[in-house]
Amino acid sequence: MKLITFNKTCIGATDGTAVYDLGKRLGWRDMREALLDPNAARRGVMTGAPDHAFNDITPEQPITNPTRIYCIGVNYMNRNAEYKDNSDAPKYPSVFVRNPRSFVAHGQALEIPPESDQLDYEGEIVLVIGRSGRRISQANAMDHVAGLTIMNEGTIRDWVRHGKFNVTPGKNWDRSGGIGPWIETDFSGVDVSDMRIETRVNGELRQSDSTASMAFPFARIIEYLSTFGTLEAGDLIATGTPTGAGARFDPPVWLKAGDVVEVSVEGVGTLSNPVRLEP
Amino acid sequence: MKLITFNKTCIGATDGTAVYDLGKRLGWRDMREALLDPNAARRGVMTGAPDHAFNDITPEQPITNPTRIYCIGVNYMNRNAEYKDNSDAPKYPSVFVRNPRSFVAHGQALEIPPESDQLDYEGEIVLVIGRSGRRISQANAMDHVAGLTIMNEGTIRDWVRHGKFNVTPGKNWDRSGGIGPWIETDFSGVDVSDMRIETRVNGELRQSDSTASMAFPFARIIEYLSTFGTLEAGDLIATGTPTGAGARFDPPVWLKAGDVVEVSVEGVGTLSNPVRLEP
Repeated sequence: MKLITFNKTCIGATDGTAVYDLGKRLGWRDMREALLDPNAARRGVMTGAPDHAFNDITPEQPITNPTRIYCIGVNYMNRNAEYKDNSDAPKYPSVFVRNPRSFVAHGQALEIPPESDQLDYEGEIVLVIGRSGRRISQANAMDHVAGLTIMNEGTIRDWVRHGKFNVTPGKNWDRSGGIGPWIETDFSGVDVSDMRIETRVNGELRQSDSTASMAFPFARIIEYLSTFGTLEAGDLIATGTPTGAGARFDPPVWLKAGDVVEVSVEGVGTLSNPVRLEP
Repeated sequence: MKLITFNKTCIGATDGTAVYDLGKRLGWRDMREALLDPNAARRGVMTGAPDHAFNDITPEQPITNPTRIYCIGVNYMNRNAEYKDNSDAPKYPSVFVRNPRSFVAHGQALEIPPESDQLDYEGEIVLVIGRSGRRISQANAMDHVAGLTIMNEGTIRDWVRHGKFNVTPGKNWDRSGGIGPWIETDFSGVDVSDMRIETRVNGELRQSDSTASMAFPFARIIEYLSTFGTLEAGDLIATGTPTGAGARFDPPVWLKAGDVVEVSVEGVGTLSNPVRLEP
């Protein structure tokens, strides 16, 4: 089942074409309720006449106010090589944090601010936490994941280097990233240890890799993050981006107004965002 | 006026002795409402018989679910010297992020987890945003601050060095820091460019400095953060800690069960937290 937040605060289920309003059908008002019961589709929620056509709704960010948005840096193995600093493979996941205003929903425009021309894309697979937990073992980790969504972990590249110990400023520009279009709760048919992720700019393939390349697979990331802090329903974990961001071209290729960025994840779908100058 | 969240979700005003319930008196249910009208005391809210004695209430974190908790690293100038890495003075504030579960309220115990014995204190002054804004000028910055509170920006020191670019894991352990006891909205009598902050462990003075030592004063921090993202009512900005954390002693002195840490800020008050082993 694909869970979607739409038209400001409505919660729905969709197959990508039809949308079933779960507020109307199940009384759900908060996506966190849906995350705790992701198998509702099996109870026949998506039956009868749909409430909307997908093309008629306005998708919102899947979780409207997540408490935690953790992001894992430099996680696809040939990306560490891309940094060419001869450092050994890292022992621990590199963790930074974004805030909800740094994203737009599926279909909305990423914005290039007047302060920089270095808006860059980073396609990522996002774990959406359902069941809360602390010190979750790798064996149990995926039981805490209610579903997967997609992120363009858009970055203002020159601002990433402002701080000695932190990338926060370059990762938290308003409307610099995208998330959505939905949360896929049924990923039983996909091998999460070998899932395909691809990013295209104006149709041109820029990133293409598999989760098999990850230094820290999903279960290890959950184990690590939950060692220091409780993970709760609605928390989002972006799991890193493959090689091929614009910063790595020579010369670098930044996004420009009129571009369209699509991030496609096997078994989940495609997140699409146009790019514009901040109005 | 000192605004306080207490007994789970109640909002109050206090003078440190008596507590006036602002839910009862003004219908306020969310601290953000109070932050947008911090001068309510002047309308006579703290008159008549108080609703509670301060000693009878249970303080909560001043903002129960802040969307953003930004923290500024290495901001007191002799702290940069403390790092002894001969680096030039930084051009930009160093910014990292914490989540609400990494704090306890005034009076509650900071916890030493089984994974580390390196729980350390960092006394800090916190700006509480009232009026939202983006690209706020330094001249207008303090107009966006509804009040000040106090943080023990408690850190699991060995986990700060896990990542190459980020300090996130060492700064986000559940119940590793403290915040409170209240938000002081009337700081007109204090010179924010030369305010005293002191940290004591079991009564022994460990940190003592003035905001005059800050590399990036309050107004510059607000200008910088609001360049990349909108600041909203209820956002918290911890402005850095003076020299004298336990990590800088030789050998380092970590907090241990039974210790009491007090952070005192001129014109605001004192945040006190005992320390215990995580049960």
